[in-house]
Amino acid sequence: MHFHIVTLFPKALHSYLGESILKRAVEDKKVKVSFYNPRNFVKDKWKRTRPNDRSHSVGRVDRPPYAGGPGMVIQAEPVVYAIEGALRKIKNKKYKIIFLSPSGKQFTNEYAGKISQKYKNIIIVCGRYEGIDARVKKIFSASRRMDEISVGPFILTGGELPAMVIMDVMARQVPGVLGNLDSLEERRVSSSEVYTRPEVFKYKNKLYRVPKVLLSGHRARIEEWKKRHN
Amino acid sequence: MHFHIVTLFPKALHSYLGESILKRAVEDKKVKVSFYNPRNFVKDKWKRTRPNDRSHSVGRVDRPPYAGGPGMVIQAEPVVYAIEGALRKIKNKKYKIIFLSPSGKQFTNEYAGKISQKYKNIIIVCGRYEGIDARVKKIFSASRRMDEISVGPFILTGGELPAMVIMDVMARQVPGVLGNLDSLEERRVSSSEVYTRPEVFKYKNKLYRVPKVLLSGHRARIEEWKKRHN
Repeated sequence: MHFHIVTLFPKALHSYLGESILKRAVEDKKVKVSFYNPRNFVKDKWKRTRPNDRSHSVGRVDRPPYAGGPGMVIQAEPVVYAIEGALRKIKNKKYKIIFLSPSGKQFTNEYAGKISQKYKNIIIVCGRYEGIDARVKKIFSASRRMDEISVGPFILTGGELPAMVIMDVMARQVPGVLGNLDSLEERRVSSSEVYTRPEVFKYKNKLYRVPKVLLSGHRARIEEWKKRHN
Repeated sequence: MHFHIVTLFPKALHSYLGESILKRAVEDKKVKVSFYNPRNFVKDKWKRTRPNDRSHSVGRVDRPPYAGGPGMVIQAEPVVYAIEGALRKIKNKKYKIIFLSPSGKQFTNEYAGKISQKYKNIIIVCGRYEGIDARVKKIFSASRRMDEISVGPFILTGGELPAMVIMDVMARQVPGVLGNLDSLEERRVSSSEVYTRPEVFKYKNKLYRVPKVLLSGHRARIEEWKKRHN
């Protein structure tokens, strides 16, 4: 599975990718992650001039919105060409573009499972500021290869966290990614109430015990208990 | 606002905190982030023995679940003492513990706004593997200072991404955090359809134009259009 991330802030994702289950998946070559920074796809000669901007890619991509309003809008052109940059790397046509937006369809485990089974290449487009010029969505939604997705009912600064959420959830669905330390919770009867050693934990003079049934060895009763505590 | 993050993988959060709106908020001293690694709160002499473990803190915290099942469970003791480590830093009693769990209450903008207004200190407890020993929840939920929260209907590898989501959404609510480049979308009539220069974008021999009303300067019509495209 190959994730193609279109983002103005690729560095924001680096340490999560270097620590999580995704790190192992990338090392085992089960998952690949590529970045496309719209700043590198700017065609005009404008340069970013903010003195504190330490990014290596210096093309300016944000402009004030038409009809006024606060904040800045990301221009269509550099995003369209960044997405094209990703498309050039995809040999077959088995890809899906996920456009992150607070007004998108709710992201779920079911969606992640369906998409990760069907497509080898996922292009995730991260917005920032007031959003991306709406013409990008118009251009790619026409192809029916684009879904507009939200991870939840809250407003984030950009699409980078949702992109990491989507990669983490989808990577878990790739066969062989989950090792001994983890399990695909979504496919088995599990309990959200888990216990491990010690049997009795003393805290502030109170004893906290593991439920007796879990120590009983009685399979049927344990399964029944787990179902009730799901 | 002070976020206290209880996590086995503090490094997973570093680059996002160093790139996002949170970076500016921390630099401006509007937001503070502290980490508490349960590995540093292990009281026994067990050491982690996996050869690839490069973490500086080497206390072992994961054990197999009682009654069997795949994966490992994080022990109660190191998590309880990590939370206590955070509590020792909180002078007043204005704190909330957020316990991340797939079976928690859905995180929303409204919740973020309410909590960030009411509490100066937020302790976020991140799970991993099969989860945290259920006694931790029992101990702290008794105080009514704990909420069990989920960011959405999907299974992630750990609570680190949800913790970043919560910090990003809440930091936006702290007065003075949002600068000129951003705006508190959640508090104004905005459109999810935004446009910026150029007026006409030519792509694959097709012309994509900004809707005429947005160039008209007619305030009432523009507001009406924005409401329709919300």
